[in-house]
Amino acid sequence: MLTKADFLRAKQRILTSLHPTPLHFSRTFSRYTEHQVWVKPENLQKTGSFKLRGAANRMAQLTDAERARGVITASSGNHGAAVAFAANQQGIPATVVMPEGAPRSKVVAVRGYGADVVFYGHYPDERKEHARALTSEQNLTYVDSNEDEDIIAGQGTCALEILEECPDVDVILAPIGGGGLVSGVAAAAHHLRPDVQVIGVEPCGAASMSASMAAGEPTSVDVETMADGLRSRKPGPMTFAYCEQYLAKIHRVSEAQIADAMVLALERLKLLLEPSGAVALAGLLAGAVTGSDRRVVVVLSGGNVDLARLVSIMQDHDPVFPRRDMRP
Amino acid sequence: MLTKADFLRAKQRILTSLHPTPLHFSRTFSRYTEHQVWVKPENLQKTGSFKLRGAANRMAQLTDAERARGVITASSGNHGAAVAFAANQQGIPATVVMPEGAPRSKVVAVRGYGADVVFYGHYPDERKEHARALTSEQNLTYVDSNEDEDIIAGQGTCALEILEECPDVDVILAPIGGGGLVSGVAAAAHHLRPDVQVIGVEPCGAASMSASMAAGEPTSVDVETMADGLRSRKPGPMTFAYCEQYLAKIHRVSEAQIADAMVLALERLKLLLEPSGAVALAGLLAGAVTGSDRRVVVVLSGGNVDLARLVSIMQDHDPVFPRRDMRP
Repeated sequence: MLTKADFLRAKQRILTSLHPTPLHFSRTFSRYTEHQVWVKPENLQKTGSFKLRGAANRMAQLTDAERARGVITASSGNHGAAVAFAANQQGIPATVVMPEGAPRSKVVAVRGYGADVVFYGHYPDERKEHARALTSEQNLTYVDSNEDEDIIAGQGTCALEILEECPDVDVILAPIGGGGLVSGVAAAAHHLRPDVQVIGVEPCGAASMSASMAAGEPTSVDVETMADGLRSRKPGPMTFAYCEQYLAKIHRVSEAQIADAMVLALERLKLLLEPSGAVALAGLLAGAVTGSDRRVVVVLSGGNVDLARLVSIMQDHDPVFPRRDMRP
Repeated sequence: MLTKADFLRAKQRILTSLHPTPLHFSRTFSRYTEHQVWVKPENLQKTGSFKLRGAANRMAQLTDAERARGVITASSGNHGAAVAFAANQQGIPATVVMPEGAPRSKVVAVRGYGADVVFYGHYPDERKEHARALTSEQNLTYVDSNEDEDIIAGQGTCALEILEECPDVDVILAPIGGGGLVSGVAAAAHHLRPDVQVIGVEPCGAASMSASMAAGEPTSVDVETMADGLRSRKPGPMTFAYCEQYLAKIHRVSEAQIADAMVLALERLKLLLEPSGAVALAGLLAGAVTGSDRRVVVVLSGGNVDLARLVSIMQDHDPVFPRRDMRP
């Protein structure tokens, strides 16, 4: 398992690759929850999500030979963009395997960061397999999005920044998809402040980590959620082990709660979040943090959503949140 | 005219009333314009706009007798909310005169900040007159949104923060409505770094400062623009004098350019701006800054827009911006 030194070194390694994303205090959400609430706006991070943290940390540790040959990953989303960007920053060739018919904006983004795009299949599993085949064929280095301690250490730097800015934080909320972010955040927070509670938030429609924790081992679930960044059928053994060891608990949120959080973030925080990026906030508003007057930081993990999709979510959205109680 | 010391004192005075709004570097807009572009996200400021700066500075200088009697202003928008909030922070009773039929969300916001709302008339001029009548009747202190050096000094603190974070900035872009923000920014920047160019950006549909500069005196124009925060028919003598003395130039933008900037800010910066808040960015993208590789800071002045209006702007919007040239 990662040590305190691993996280601190990761932070040094990636410092210059990142945008600062200072904590932002929310009066509105503080009043509503009766806690003191800050958000960590990783939607403002380069590439629009926290994923650059792990990718930059991973790239920085390749050998010269690995750097010359290049990296490959399979991702249609934020991890793919982050690997493309980090590789480009460090002068490493990158290939991203994307699904046939991937949204044009995502393909343009990955190519804009200088990576080669290979189209293959429709399902994550077949893409991953294809990427692994190319890995050995072309002697590339495969960069997994979650099951990799360099990736987890990179994502954990998010907690180091939170603790620097808000040293007496009581609770940190982060979303769970593949589990890389929440593993890194929970382990890093534990090493620096063992009494900080890290709560993972998962969509009810992709609750593979909850199911796995209940079963005591990585377990498959059916997945259907608007939070496309968190559509994980089954956690890997590594993130499962981190979550078992370090998470205070997991809270699950409905699709309506996710949409609500997304709309409220836009309206009240003036921040655009993708559905996955709003999941931890949805957890907070749905009561994941008990008690009162606790110092809570919510990780808003990403903001990459097509505006057409945003409009359709806003239009379909039937607010569940008691808006009248929200003082501006 | 305000001195360097006036701005520095204003900064000290309001420091604890504000959210920090650190500069954010934009790779996308830098590439597109071939400048180095940062944004100053005042949409993330408390109350959702820069207006709190001036209001907090003004409130902090009332006498004890004035504080006890209370303040009044006429504004349906960000200035009204800022006065209500600042008064509330400092324990001062506040009254805001709003138009009959003002949007419910704005009324709720102002009341939420603890102010009394008085509904009167439909036009800014009649509201202002009514507020002035109440001022003498009830012995209140009237707080103008622009023609007041304490207000201008407060708005200018925005430039002090920009210069602290980006000491070698070449150009600052700010929107012009009543002129308080651009007057403060231009004067403060001049006192600290006389060679910084401050460019004001005005909607073509509310170009009263351009018309006044051309005429050599405050001049009335017809006003029609989606940028509701900048609908000023005629500048006052004070902001006119500041603009004449300190502005490098004024750039005008079309309605389509404003809508474009609003949509691009959401898509690329993940920031929600109201139309007025996107006007300075529209100026940048429309070529207000000539030359290349200059260090440019764009003030994103506010983010208070109803989501229904956002959706309708996005849907009506026919992009004029050459999206293909925008590398993500």
